[in-house]
Amino acid sequence: MSVVLSRDSQVRVMEDTVTNAEKHLGQFCSMLAAYTRKTAQVRDKADRLVKQLTDFANTEHPDMRATLRSFAEDLAKVQDYRQAEVERLETKVISPLQLYGAHTKRAEIKKLKQVQKNEIKQLAKLGKLRQKSPSDRLTISQAETSVQRASADASHTTHRLGERIEAFQKRKLTDLQKIFLDFVTIEMVLHAKAVEVYSSAFQTLENYDPERDLEDFRAKMHGLYGHRDARPLTDTVSSPAVPWSLTGQSAQTALRGERREDEETLEASAEEDLRGRGRALHQ
Amino acid sequence: MSVVLSRDSQVRVMEDTVTNAEKHLGQFCSMLAAYTRKTAQVRDKADRLVKQLTDFANTEHPDMRATLRSFAEDLAKVQDYRQAEVERLETKVISPLQLYGAHTKRAEIKKLKQVQKNEIKQLAKLGKLRQKSPSDRLTISQAETSVQRASADASHTTHRLGERIEAFQKRKLTDLQKIFLDFVTIEMVLHAKAVEVYSSAFQTLENYDPERDLEDFRAKMHGLYGHRDARPLTDTVSSPAVPWSLTGQSAQTALRGERREDEETLEASAEEDLRGRGRALHQ
Repeated sequence: MSVVLSRDSQVRVMEDTVTNAEKHLGQFCSMLAAYTRKTAQVRDKADRLVKQLTDFANTEHPDMRATLRSFAEDLAKVQDYRQAEVERLETKVISPLQLYGAHTKRAEIKKLKQVQKNEIKQLAKLGKLRQKSPSDRLTISQAETSVQRASADASHTTHRLGERIEAFQKRKLTDLQKIFLDFVTIEMVLHAKAVEVYSSAFQTLENYDPERDLEDFRAKMHGLYGHRDARPLTDTVSSPAVPWSLTGQSAQTALRGERREDEETLEASAEEDLRGRGRALHQ
Repeated sequence: MSVVLSRDSQVRVMEDTVTNAEKHLGQFCSMLAAYTRKTAQVRDKADRLVKQLTDFANTEHPDMRATLRSFAEDLAKVQDYRQAEVERLETKVISPLQLYGAHTKRAEIKKLKQVQKNEIKQLAKLGKLRQKSPSDRLTISQAETSVQRASADASHTTHRLGERIEAFQKRKLTDLQKIFLDFVTIEMVLHAKAVEVYSSAFQTLENYDPERDLEDFRAKMHGLYGHRDARPLTDTVSSPAVPWSLTGQSAQTALRGERREDEETLEASAEEDLRGRGRALHQ
């Protein structure tokens, strides 16, 4: 009977293993999905800031205009990396966790429990027979055979399922290690790239000197148009003469997919260029 | 009359300057506030993941348990830096932008317009007098004096306001440079610290070897309790013998303030420790 009890405790270990995996990995999955969604929303907000910076740049004096455009471009680059982060988290972290529906294992455990129940039933039957008709050798012998068969079945099934649960546990441990390593790597790439881009943005902003722009302002005030490349202080669209067009930012934003709630319409002309840019970031 | 026109165009430059500052800086402010709020929400989601990792760690084999706890601790550290980022953005970026209510300047421009209107009115009056009563020397002389006074007033007011708007513009350019430099610096600190913390997390995760945990699993399966520090595979609370307590994470979460929507209750015991930790990050 102690073998039966031992099998019973093995089943409990198996059940706990599967239950914990189901429960916690499912929660990891939804929490990491929420984390990723919020990250995508940070990217959206930053994209709008990029657009606003570009609009404002167009109303500003030449040096501030150039500085703000460069800053907007850097900020957009960080959002491209954030977009890459979001996509990688979906592919390498959330998707693998979604696969952890351990339901098939649960069915196998249920089956094992039935096998074990049968063993106990046969044992009880044999016990009863031995009490009631101790001299009925044939029936007792048949019952003993049934018990043996049921025991063999239970032993075999427990052993086989034990091996499978162990393999499941091994895969789970290895997968978790890999998934969290991927998470950390994805985050590290974003943060490292952001440090790089922001370092360059810092330089640009620091090099800005308001003095030359104030000359421009004074020239405007006293009607000396034509001084440097002074422009009227009104909203204008980004000049097509500018080598890189920041109007592309809004196009990219739209390109990033259907999850966006409140985004500008796509500017098809910028699409191809940005696709290329997006790809480069994913390598 | 060309002086009057020139003054008129100066007023337009002033108006554009103030209008653009009001419009765009106000938008920067609300967009950066939205960006900051979303960042705070990323932090909230990551905090929940930290809690979940800790809960799950308690159901796991010894090595995975230690690995997950260490990972959770690193993830919590990144959130502390994110919290510092949020607070710094509020203090050094959003608040200074909020101060850009350029309304007082607008009132001054309105006053200047009235002064200029008066000049035009006096000029028109003089013109009419010269047509109607060209011989009325005294009245014409009085009107000429009025025009001179109005012109002097308009010239003086335009000049003075021009200086003030120039000072405003200078301050705006310098402030924008400073605000965006602060933004970039704050972001850089977060990203640099995150790279540092995640590098250590990567090491911990990489060093994990599932083999020893599988021994623990097999021992549990075969009822060999007492093997290593095997524990039943059920949820338990974090052992108080553990030198650092991750239950503090939820306490910290609550500490971070009123903006949170859905957070755990405060564990007062961990408060003091975490305040110290928070402070260290802000230096």
